[in-house]
Amino acid sequence: MNDLKPSEYRVLRGDEIVQLLAREPSLHELLGGDCSTWRVRDVADGNINAVYLVDGAAGGVCVKQALPWLRVAGDSWPLPIERAVFEDAYMRRIEPIVGALAPRWLHFDPVMHVIVMERLEPHVILRQGLIKGRVFPDAARAVADYVAAACFHTSDLANGFERKYEDLALFSRNVALQRITLDLVFTEPYIEAARNHWVEPWLDGWAASLRNDLALKTVVARHRLHYLTHAQALIHGDLHSGSVMVTERDTRVIDGEFAALGPIGFDLGAFIGNLLLAWYSKAGDAVVPSGSTYRQWILDQAVVFWQRFDQQFRSHWSGHVASNDAYPPSHFASAAGQARLALIQRDYVARIFDDMLAYAAIKMIRRIVGFAQVADFLAIEDLRKRALAQAGALALARDLLLHPHRFPGIAALVDAAPRYECVGLDPDLSRRA
Amino acid sequence: MNDLKPSEYRVLRGDEIVQLLAREPSLHELLGGDCSTWRVRDVADGNINAVYLVDGAAGGVCVKQALPWLRVAGDSWPLPIERAVFEDAYMRRIEPIVGALAPRWLHFDPVMHVIVMERLEPHVILRQGLIKGRVFPDAARAVADYVAAACFHTSDLANGFERKYEDLALFSRNVALQRITLDLVFTEPYIEAARNHWVEPWLDGWAASLRNDLALKTVVARHRLHYLTHAQALIHGDLHSGSVMVTERDTRVIDGEFAALGPIGFDLGAFIGNLLLAWYSKAGDAVVPSGSTYRQWILDQAVVFWQRFDQQFRSHWSGHVASNDAYPPSHFASAAGQARLALIQRDYVARIFDDMLAYAAIKMIRRIVGFAQVADFLAIEDLRKRALAQAGALALARDLLLHPHRFPGIAALVDAAPRYECVGLDPDLSRRA
Repeated sequence: MNDLKPSEYRVLRGDEIVQLLAREPSLHELLGGDCSTWRVRDVADGNINAVYLVDGAAGGVCVKQALPWLRVAGDSWPLPIERAVFEDAYMRRIEPIVGALAPRWLHFDPVMHVIVMERLEPHVILRQGLIKGRVFPDAARAVADYVAAACFHTSDLANGFERKYEDLALFSRNVALQRITLDLVFTEPYIEAARNHWVEPWLDGWAASLRNDLALKTVVARHRLHYLTHAQALIHGDLHSGSVMVTERDTRVIDGEFAALGPIGFDLGAFIGNLLLAWYSKAGDAVVPSGSTYRQWILDQAVVFWQRFDQQFRSHWSGHVASNDAYPPSHFASAAGQARLALIQRDYVARIFDDMLAYAAIKMIRRIVGFAQVADFLAIEDLRKRALAQAGALALARDLLLHPHRFPGIAALVDAAPRYECVGLDPDLSRRA
Repeated sequence: MNDLKPSEYRVLRGDEIVQLLAREPSLHELLGGDCSTWRVRDVADGNINAVYLVDGAAGGVCVKQALPWLRVAGDSWPLPIERAVFEDAYMRRIEPIVGALAPRWLHFDPVMHVIVMERLEPHVILRQGLIKGRVFPDAARAVADYVAAACFHTSDLANGFERKYEDLALFSRNVALQRITLDLVFTEPYIEAARNHWVEPWLDGWAASLRNDLALKTVVARHRLHYLTHAQALIHGDLHSGSVMVTERDTRVIDGEFAALGPIGFDLGAFIGNLLLAWYSKAGDAVVPSGSTYRQWILDQAVVFWQRFDQQFRSHWSGHVASNDAYPPSHFASAAGQARLALIQRDYVARIFDDMLAYAAIKMIRRIVGFAQVADFLAIEDLRKRALAQAGALALARDLLLHPHRFPGIAALVDAAPRYECVGLDPDLSRRA
């Protein structure tokens, strides 16, 4: 697994991608006609891989190739191509569980580290849609359904432990991208690291405050260790709004190369944290075509997202009659046992909620003072105003970590968001918003 | 991994074991002389494997072969021989960490699934020594040192997460023995299972009470799920007093075939739980050659065991300067950071203590009403008196699980043990001892 670039692997040109697809009868048929007429478009949007759409006479596919480096950084940042093996494994593991909430898997080339999947048309990346102020009525519900199904059915709640151990044995080899998560999400935002950046000079005080806040770093450490040790379910590992493709009526989760066994709240936190970032980014004079109701719609989606997850996850659990090692049916068979199990379910989901808030906060912080920023805030061209919007998000994130008891439910979270909006650029004055 | 008995594997006779050893030059030299003079003794004591001591002119070795079935159950209970692969991997992973606290690893035959290791002489199994009332002044300290070193250095506290992921990828394939732990330790004692037994009719009431106690089963489920999901460190997985070999001056931990990534408290609980069982078994008219002070010595060892673990684990942590992903040095470099880290260490170890008590309780229960009983209680020949002694252990175990706040430290635990001794055979009357 350590060879960055085995000898037969190469970064494919457009014509080589066509040849690869044409060799597979099922793909050739799907695309249709003479392969010399197929059109290849580079549509890479994420930070990491090469992505192409290929259109033929009858249909199209999406082709994703792992490059031996991080796409946005170039060959100064090598990255093992084997991440495609894990994305491939994740897609095939999850597809029977989530169905049409992910693009259909079509093919994997283990030499070129190419995944071929359903081309989504006319989908856009959810983050881009949110930046443009578009409403996607079903997105939050669909992502909640995705996490509830994928995580319930890969947890010990659904199976004998052997099934999860099989996933553990495989996905524990997916270390290169875990290293990125560890460094960029959990560690570097709290130290002086060359890859960090923020809106200077306006957020200098906030960045220093995060580096010097021992209480905060202690809480972050607890959640980092929880992330590393709590093999609760097979998680997507990078479920922000850039990993979701949408139309008004269809929603698909993509880009599972960060897949790992971890806490379910990490996936939920990534999504809701990025919803909150989108909300804060609509401050000031940012252009919001849908008008003032748009910000409320975003917060409403946070509520929809959590409530739907809560309901769906417990519904999967209650409807699941097969044996499992977490709560064996034989231990809770009586009427009293069933009533107890309902309490256990509520408690289990409440702890996922706590995890979600903490990971949402950690994700928000890293997107403002760390390496990988989000495009949402670029709509605010005035840097001071951009920093002010981001300071609100940072202040909320800090209190989510330091004072989680102030956020006992989803209503408390969305009620709090506006209170943190005008805290200003001084990290000390913004305490206790 | 699923073939129970690959074609070239066979259960070895004594002369075949000699041939296997003679083929390895280093082993031949260690044993010395003409191999036809080597003496083979069957010394299997545990429930699972074949074990032989082989003596030559110059020295001896211990030979352990995994059989395609559970040794005590015969071929009615098949068990994959690959468990030897994991015991071998565990021995070699742990040896550089624990040194002479385990027998020296000498050889592994991957076809015959034979591990050859240092012959321990004149060591006895600790459980057998305790049954005979012998004092081993150093055993509890040494086992504490073993767990502290082995678990600290395989946790995220000591390394970048990649090292633990490597262990996870390997040991997550060790499913056959995990299934035994799940079923026999965590699940069957609380249901009507064919493999359960207890001292009938005296403990019938207790066995029924354990099956019907929904609050207890809820707590057990939480710890079972914690066991399955909390990949804290590479644990031994079966560290009872039958997995420790001792002389008055030397202590070695053996039999690592249950190795898994799990909660550190599971190993500690196995050991201290079996100390408590030994203490309860010395009740009534049991023969205790060392006299009345012997029981106090056993309880003292529980205190020594925990205090030594606590001190050693934190000492490993404080002395560890290498980078790690749990508490990165860069986050806690200041004087205040170092002071905070000391608090974090105390909190971390306090949670291990809580785990230890819960797993000790679960282990005690399964050894009294489950499949695999312990020999300690056989010294009490009067069945009613034996049941009375066991009822005390069950009553303590139940309160450890239902009322953990009553046991805030090791002193509270050992103070409590005698209070539960005379609770009697009625499980309801014995509540709130």
